[in-house]
Amino acid sequence: MPHVVEHARTSLNFSAGPAVLPESVLEQAREDLWNIDDSGIGVLEHSHRGAVINRVFEEAEADCRHVGDIPDDFSVLFLQGGASMQFAMIAMNFLAEGRTADYLHTGAWTERAIADARVIGNVHLPFDGTDGGFKSIPANDALHWSNDPVYAAYCSNNTIYGTRFNHVPNAPAPLIADMSSEMFSRPIDWSSHAMVYAGAQKNLGPAGVMLAVIRTDLLEQTNDSLPSMLRYKLHADKGSRYNTPPVFGVYICSLVFKWIKSMGGIQTMSDRNDAKAKCIYDAIDSSGGFWTGHADADCRSVMNIPFVSPSPDQDAAFLQRAGQEGMSGLKGHRSVGGLRASIYNAFPDAGCTALAQLMRDVAAAG
Amino acid sequence: MPHVVEHARTSLNFSAGPAVLPESVLEQAREDLWNIDDSGIGVLEHSHRGAVINRVFEEAEADCRHVGDIPDDFSVLFLQGGASMQFAMIAMNFLAEGRTADYLHTGAWTERAIADARVIGNVHLPFDGTDGGFKSIPANDALHWSNDPVYAAYCSNNTIYGTRFNHVPNAPAPLIADMSSEMFSRPIDWSSHAMVYAGAQKNLGPAGVMLAVIRTDLLEQTNDSLPSMLRYKLHADKGSRYNTPPVFGVYICSLVFKWIKSMGGIQTMSDRNDAKAKCIYDAIDSSGGFWTGHADADCRSVMNIPFVSPSPDQDAAFLQRAGQEGMSGLKGHRSVGGLRASIYNAFPDAGCTALAQLMRDVAAAG
Repeated sequence: MPHVVEHARTSLNFSAGPAVLPESVLEQAREDLWNIDDSGIGVLEHSHRGAVINRVFEEAEADCRHVGDIPDDFSVLFLQGGASMQFAMIAMNFLAEGRTADYLHTGAWTERAIADARVIGNVHLPFDGTDGGFKSIPANDALHWSNDPVYAAYCSNNTIYGTRFNHVPNAPAPLIADMSSEMFSRPIDWSSHAMVYAGAQKNLGPAGVMLAVIRTDLLEQTNDSLPSMLRYKLHADKGSRYNTPPVFGVYICSLVFKWIKSMGGIQTMSDRNDAKAKCIYDAIDSSGGFWTGHADADCRSVMNIPFVSPSPDQDAAFLQRAGQEGMSGLKGHRSVGGLRASIYNAFPDAGCTALAQLMRDVAAAG
Repeated sequence: MPHVVEHARTSLNFSAGPAVLPESVLEQAREDLWNIDDSGIGVLEHSHRGAVINRVFEEAEADCRHVGDIPDDFSVLFLQGGASMQFAMIAMNFLAEGRTADYLHTGAWTERAIADARVIGNVHLPFDGTDGGFKSIPANDALHWSNDPVYAAYCSNNTIYGTRFNHVPNAPAPLIADMSSEMFSRPIDWSSHAMVYAGAQKNLGPAGVMLAVIRTDLLEQTNDSLPSMLRYKLHADKGSRYNTPPVFGVYICSLVFKWIKSMGGIQTMSDRNDAKAKCIYDAIDSSGGFWTGHADADCRSVMNIPFVSPSPDQDAAFLQRAGQEGMSGLKGHRSVGGLRASIYNAFPDAGCTALAQLMRDVAAAG
């Protein structure tokens, strides 16, 4: 039997995604890669229609529903292609000819979603944050909906700009949310949404699998004259196994759902996430202007915190010092610059405390 | 540091896919899940644009090109959605309006490819094996091509029916091959192909990643009025990282490519695969008619061997006895029945010997 060599892990991985996973999940995965359920076969090597993977898929869906408090009239799908493939599939499935879809434009990912939807049909923007540098999230009374949109789409947490919706948009149509960078970090108001989706690699699991939760009445309205793999209804009818699914990704998500349960559920996660973010925002706000957050204060993300010092040189010096202290993944996205701390569910409290302390030290030294 | 508990593995996993992987690959993956390249971070948790995953992707492509002897005028893409998504994307990218694409119909997977292509445009079948129960592969002089097809598509190895092409179809157009169940099991004649693709989960790695190798001149003919994720050209321009890629799948494929190199390369693999398959076919052919292979003798697959005994009861008894001897995954596909042995690159010689011996014993006992 092979000997597994251990090395030290850092607990300070601030990567925006793929991102840190719970260590208990990794430990289980290391066993199951070799031999899952004492079957004599590893999780990667089982038929996706056999008993072991049936168990994995059944538990993944059941735990997902439990953790997310997902109502019975929603289908839970695990698909491939990330959120980016949903940009195409949402428009292809739901943006019927002659209709208009409304997209709230709040950042880089909505830009891609809008561009893909425009290939398929008519798109209207009830809000366009481009001129404001995507620092803000519109209040409901600032939204100018089109007449009778077929659906409305928004991104609830903007990874790059560090903003999030603290209210649900008052859409006059089925509402679709890209929650890639905050799925299961706080409770979801299912009564206001017809579809919620998320690439897994930020808060749910590894890259290569995405979660789509779609209300039955929306599923029934899909365009069925599409190639098979692009039809949500077919994936729903086949329990996410129309073709060979991304087994390992679903398996890791399943372990993450169990981990969330073991930690006390989403409300507990949410409270903890609020405290983790507050720790870092306090370091920004108490720095006497040394640190500046990108997002307006009323729409600050609890998952992604982009911030800058007075100069790119000081940003670079901070990055270097943070690196020396074992902090990685803090470089800001190229479109915003500066620094960014991504602190998803699995990111430890102690990492936030350590970053905040370093930020205070550097601000005090000027 | 976590303790990894070891259990016995079986070496007799005949699953058609996902399928057995080399144990040395699993051992490396178990280390790297925890901490890859001594970075302090596991392979699932690194940014897909950071130094570690850059190394993984560069090595995956370089080793893939080396192992597959892929010419420089082909792009190597690692994408999501499996071969099934390529059924859609091939037609969407290359089946221009007013043109016809030719599909050789040799089994269940070509049926899906044809159905998806027909959603997009005109399809012609130079060969249709439906009436023959997909037992045979057509010779080139039996192919009735359409006038000036835009491309020709075929499946070089049919997983379910256990047939394979021992010649390249003489297509009068760019030739596209689905090699999902035999990719890198034998050398590929690149001069005759414009595109070759394969879901990884049979011979290359885990489910959730697929390999597409596309000649530059075909890439340049793609339809660029498609949503981003459906455009091959965009994926090629972005080095398979337009969006977050299936990192773990690419990583495992990379390890498998290195394993193939360490085993002596594809020609060595191919010779070994021939010997493994011969061992089982000999047990069929010497059984005095007890065992019957599904495929005609001149087009027998070296990867997938479907066979039956004189009755479903005897098939079931054999399955049970094989199970007692630690052999799994031998149940035939529901559309063919009986038994099926899938013996991909990573399946050990000794497993084929053990199966053949059991087949002889059972045949002798009648």
